[in-house]
Amino acid sequence: MNPRLFSFVGGAKGPWQVTSTRTIVGEPLTPVERIAVVSGDQALPSHAKWILRGVTSNERYTTHAEKRQLSERQASLGRTEARHAALIPLRKNAAWWALSQDDRRSLFEEHSKHIAIGLKYLPAIARRLHHCRDLAEQEPFDFLTFFDFADVDSVAFDELLAELRKGAEWEFVDREVEIRMIRD
Amino acid sequence: MNPRLFSFVGGAKGPWQVTSTRTIVGEPLTPVERIAVVSGDQALPSHAKWILRGVTSNERYTTHAEKRQLSERQASLGRTEARHAALIPLRKNAAWWALSQDDRRSLFEEHSKHIAIGLKYLPAIARRLHHCRDLAEQEPFDFLTFFDFADVDSVAFDELLAELRKGAEWEFVDREVEIRMIRD
Repeated sequence: MNPRLFSFVGGAKGPWQVTSTRTIVGEPLTPVERIAVVSGDQALPSHAKWILRGVTSNERYTTHAEKRQLSERQASLGRTEARHAALIPLRKNAAWWALSQDDRRSLFEEHSKHIAIGLKYLPAIARRLHHCRDLAEQEPFDFLTFFDFADVDSVAFDELLAELRKGAEWEFVDREVEIRMIRD
Repeated sequence: MNPRLFSFVGGAKGPWQVTSTRTIVGEPLTPVERIAVVSGDQALPSHAKWILRGVTSNERYTTHAEKRQLSERQASLGRTEARHAALIPLRKNAAWWALSQDDRRSLFEEHSKHIAIGLKYLPAIARRLHHCRDLAEQEPFDFLTFFDFADVDSVAFDELLAELRKGAEWEFVDREVEIRMIRD
């Protein structure tokens, strides 16, 4: 098994209790009570309603200077105080994937400030991005992003999402679901 | 199944007869007599010695201008006269994958002229790149490139490989095997 693989298992089990499931665009995802995050070759919980899988990977757009800024400021998932989380499965349309690398970078950062916006919320909001588009199976989403943060940063997280969704990059998003959770 | 998935099945079956298997760097791959190229959900031949899998995907480094030049000049695999082929499974080291996008682009093209070299050999040498690094399974290679060309272009293909392997990008390659084939 790829050690960078993570499975998000939606059902009745897992430490994350789902508080809301909101369809932002496109087809909804069946709401579940709980989500378990399973890494690599760990056993999957039984009786799942759905399993979304993705792998962490190399950065696709980040420059050398941006990578340094991010690594200086970002936190890892799993801090004790980070009892709130969100899982955001997202798909981009065929027009996005047909763009050249420089055109995608330009939309992503020069027009939409994806990295600059994310930086403003570090280290409060931790995130981990998983890629699904290049798995062997046909996956329902291209990306799964998992975020965690403390209760006090919940409003900041809403602001972060609102800022990102205003960008030109988001015009290429054709399916997005926002799942919010709290930890037992 | 992902419609962009291809499986390269090495064994005693398939239309491509292997004429040589050469280890360029790193661990060898078990030599086989024949290779079958299987797309998406087609049935895999039985009794394979190995199966290498990868998905075609969006371009990672190509600019808008380069993409236009490539699409104007490149041919698809499978031309009647293209009776020669090569499968080159290749892996890059951890240092490559830890680089930022702009540093990888700079090594790939500004220093190593990967795209510019490939362009010189179009349309004679057709190629299709498959990505394996972000599959759910732990794969032995990061990329599988399949090339086909006519007998008359065999020397040009050798030159193309020699030129690419001289570049700074190739210093990050830690496993590479070159399998040459002819079609029945």
